[in-house]
Amino acid sequence: MSDSAYGRLEAHWRRLSHLGDAIGALHWDQSVMMPPGGAAARAEQIATLSVLRHELLVDPSIGDLLSEAEAEIVEDPWPAANLSEMRRRWVHATAVPCDLVEAMSRAGSHCETIWRDARPNSDFALVLPALTDVLALTREIAQAKAEALGCSEYDALLDTYEPDGRSDRIDAIFGDYAQFLPDFLDDVLTRQNETPAPAAPSGPFTAESQRALCRAMSETVGFDFDAGRLDESLHPFSTGIPEDSRITTRYDEDDYSFALMGVLHETGHAMYERGRPKVWRNQPVGDARGMTLHESQSLIVEMQACRSRAFYEWAAPVQRDAFGGSGPAWDVDNLHRRAIRVERGFIRVDADEVTYPAHVILRYRLERAMLAGDLPLHDLPGAWNDGLQSLLNITPPDDRRGCLQDIHWYDGAWGYFPTYTLGAMAAAQFFETATARDPDILDGLARGDFAPLMGWLRENVHSLASSKSTDEIIEQATGRTLDDTSFKRHLTARYLS
Amino acid sequence: MSDSAYGRLEAHWRRLSHLGDAIGALHWDQSVMMPPGGAAARAEQIATLSVLRHELLVDPSIGDLLSEAEAEIVEDPWPAANLSEMRRRWVHATAVPCDLVEAMSRAGSHCETIWRDARPNSDFALVLPALTDVLALTREIAQAKAEALGCSEYDALLDTYEPDGRSDRIDAIFGDYAQFLPDFLDDVLTRQNETPAPAAPSGPFTAESQRALCRAMSETVGFDFDAGRLDESLHPFSTGIPEDSRITTRYDEDDYSFALMGVLHETGHAMYERGRPKVWRNQPVGDARGMTLHESQSLIVEMQACRSRAFYEWAAPVQRDAFGGSGPAWDVDNLHRRAIRVERGFIRVDADEVTYPAHVILRYRLERAMLAGDLPLHDLPGAWNDGLQSLLNITPPDDRRGCLQDIHWYDGAWGYFPTYTLGAMAAAQFFETATARDPDILDGLARGDFAPLMGWLRENVHSLASSKSTDEIIEQATGRTLDDTSFKRHLTARYLS
Repeated sequence: MSDSAYGRLEAHWRRLSHLGDAIGALHWDQSVMMPPGGAAARAEQIATLSVLRHELLVDPSIGDLLSEAEAEIVEDPWPAANLSEMRRRWVHATAVPCDLVEAMSRAGSHCETIWRDARPNSDFALVLPALTDVLALTREIAQAKAEALGCSEYDALLDTYEPDGRSDRIDAIFGDYAQFLPDFLDDVLTRQNETPAPAAPSGPFTAESQRALCRAMSETVGFDFDAGRLDESLHPFSTGIPEDSRITTRYDEDDYSFALMGVLHETGHAMYERGRPKVWRNQPVGDARGMTLHESQSLIVEMQACRSRAFYEWAAPVQRDAFGGSGPAWDVDNLHRRAIRVERGFIRVDADEVTYPAHVILRYRLERAMLAGDLPLHDLPGAWNDGLQSLLNITPPDDRRGCLQDIHWYDGAWGYFPTYTLGAMAAAQFFETATARDPDILDGLARGDFAPLMGWLRENVHSLASSKSTDEIIEQATGRTLDDTSFKRHLTARYLS
Repeated sequence: MSDSAYGRLEAHWRRLSHLGDAIGALHWDQSVMMPPGGAAARAEQIATLSVLRHELLVDPSIGDLLSEAEAEIVEDPWPAANLSEMRRRWVHATAVPCDLVEAMSRAGSHCETIWRDARPNSDFALVLPALTDVLALTREIAQAKAEALGCSEYDALLDTYEPDGRSDRIDAIFGDYAQFLPDFLDDVLTRQNETPAPAAPSGPFTAESQRALCRAMSETVGFDFDAGRLDESLHPFSTGIPEDSRITTRYDEDDYSFALMGVLHETGHAMYERGRPKVWRNQPVGDARGMTLHESQSLIVEMQACRSRAFYEWAAPVQRDAFGGSGPAWDVDNLHRRAIRVERGFIRVDADEVTYPAHVILRYRLERAMLAGDLPLHDLPGAWNDGLQSLLNITPPDDRRGCLQDIHWYDGAWGYFPTYTLGAMAAAQFFETATARDPDILDGLARGDFAPLMGWLRENVHSLASSKSTDEIIEQATGRTLDDTSFKRHLTARYLS
């Protein structure tokens, strides 16, 4: 095999994968370890490796090798899927001229830097010129990729994060949820207000004891600290490779739940990384299928499992003991009610699972309008406020809590937002099916045993990697492609029953 | 300039430099942060980047560009020196085939990982097969480079660490010292035994208070923590880039001096990194001249300055206060006598400056014999023990304290060892000249002011980077090329006067 066109492509992609892994490690160090003096040099290192990776990807020989290999491969589905994912990446890379890639990279960095000043000062006008450049270049890239991929411009951007994702499907799912939400949210809040708010456990919650609790709970889910680390950074994230997952969080000494739920979320991502087949490691087919499935794996742990009533049977006393707490605030019911509190709010990353999709639907609609040229950028703050008013019945008092809150558009990530909510819906659909087929999954959570849940996920999601499409994986696991019915049933059961 | 052959070479080397810096960051992470599970993948990442760097270095266009540029450049000494260092690196790189470079990188990482298990268990047999691979590949590389450079195989390896270094010079210097040592060591120990051993300050020396002291003293020398970090690792080292120096140490809670002196040593390295001209950053001529000068800069801080009687005037009360100590063990004289204690010991990194060269001479002789094929690897433990017996009159009780103690051979660094002792001798030669010319250097140390010493070093060593040869730099600064006379005078003054 290794002398065949396909074998040569595998070797080539192994190299690309190592290079990508190295870039990831440098990014982690930059966010977690690097002193400020290293910033400029690190940017040069990462830029150099990124250019080398791009040059390897668009190497003139690759197009011919792909065509040759496509003639070779006929039967075995994994190499066939691998080859088709190679072509997808090659099309993405070759669609965009090098100088446009470079201009976009520079415009994104520049705009992000300005955004870091503009956000705390609610100064949208400050970042408007830089954002105008980013949008113009993003539209150029979208046009180039749309032509190469044979799809709409928005779908071409979406394809980077969610391969084969299509906006007409998203329109239908988001439209349905937007219709469901207003009355449902009223009902949930009415119901929630019938009883007094749950009591807050009292600290102190030292960083050290939070770290110990986060480590213990992450290990309970299945995280292996011989193959990963937990550190601190300003903005929590997870990165790394299957054999070396790097999770970060930050500790709020007044409320441990932010760090804990964040770590459980990132642990879900790490379990997906670890659960894919080792034998396809470093090949496109061995990678995560896309951001919808990736997010579904973090949210099935954080939202479905770790905010379930069953889990709190086990988790409440563990949390109490971690901080040497006592009293009714540590009771199972009280802690569980705190974990599923719903509130209309301005900030996406602080939102509960009921209102979170409204934040995403808003951004999805706005980014489509901006890319289509239907929403001039100077109208964005007003359109944002109108949109949130119509979806959640609240209006942000300033742009810091409005259209300046997220980094995504400013650093050039357009087409990413919908995957957060598609992931939440996929998590509900997987969890509904899994718990119906195997009652031991919920029983397991009540005794701190994630093996039954992780076993199901490994078999039905992780082990498939990118060998099938997102649609195929979800349909094979749950009997139908993605929709919001499981998610609505989940919310109704959790908040209104 | 940028369109000239020379300008294109500068751009090319800038890229090579970024790539090298990235490899360095990955190595640091591997030693300090990485969980064990990441080892195999990290080896692949580093191997891939090393191969890419090698491919860039041996790119067919480079040989022609070098010849073209050599015809262009005539007057300005820095670009001329830059070009000549470019050629040196190009000769090193083109001498060795790509697959050999890749095999060596992978074998070194693999062997190092096994060594980490073998050392604590004194299990030389465990690492013997991996070390055999490393040596075989090292010999292949030495042969290829010797032919290209027109020197002996050992000198070809040495040239990587000490450009233009020659083993006949080392033989002469080491031979002289080996002759000087036995009687001198007897005299020193006799003299030392005439008075009772200095009292040990009593702890506890918590890791936390040691870390604070190490940071404070490192800052006193000139280290900038906005442009560097201090961390922990099994085998202390320093790496990184001028803008982001990474120092590591380990804390022994029974004796703080190991960590403190180690950090001061690594600080000396970091000061050399920081002190070279920014304008030549990322170019060969802007790099450290070689490991002899690099080690001279760590040892001038650790051995010459920070074990001087003058320094203890200031440092003794600082150390006492760091641990809240009291009593005569914290007196200036007592702490100074502890800092210059001489003892026959098995461990190189714990050795005093009198016996340290014996450890290096042993390794130098053994690695030359192994490379020449005169010493089969399975005989290494015995040869090691015989050699130490003949040099220091002691025999290690096990291989952990014998031939397994150092990482160097196991991770593929052959030809490196002599630079430690050449560096010690260069440090003595610089310090003797500097303190004779500027009396404020010693006065400064007595008040915790390193500015006079660092000013002299910056002017006479750091600022020259690789614009001149090691011989030229030492001769210009001290009036003669390197020998061991200053070193012997220093030892005689410190230990017998």
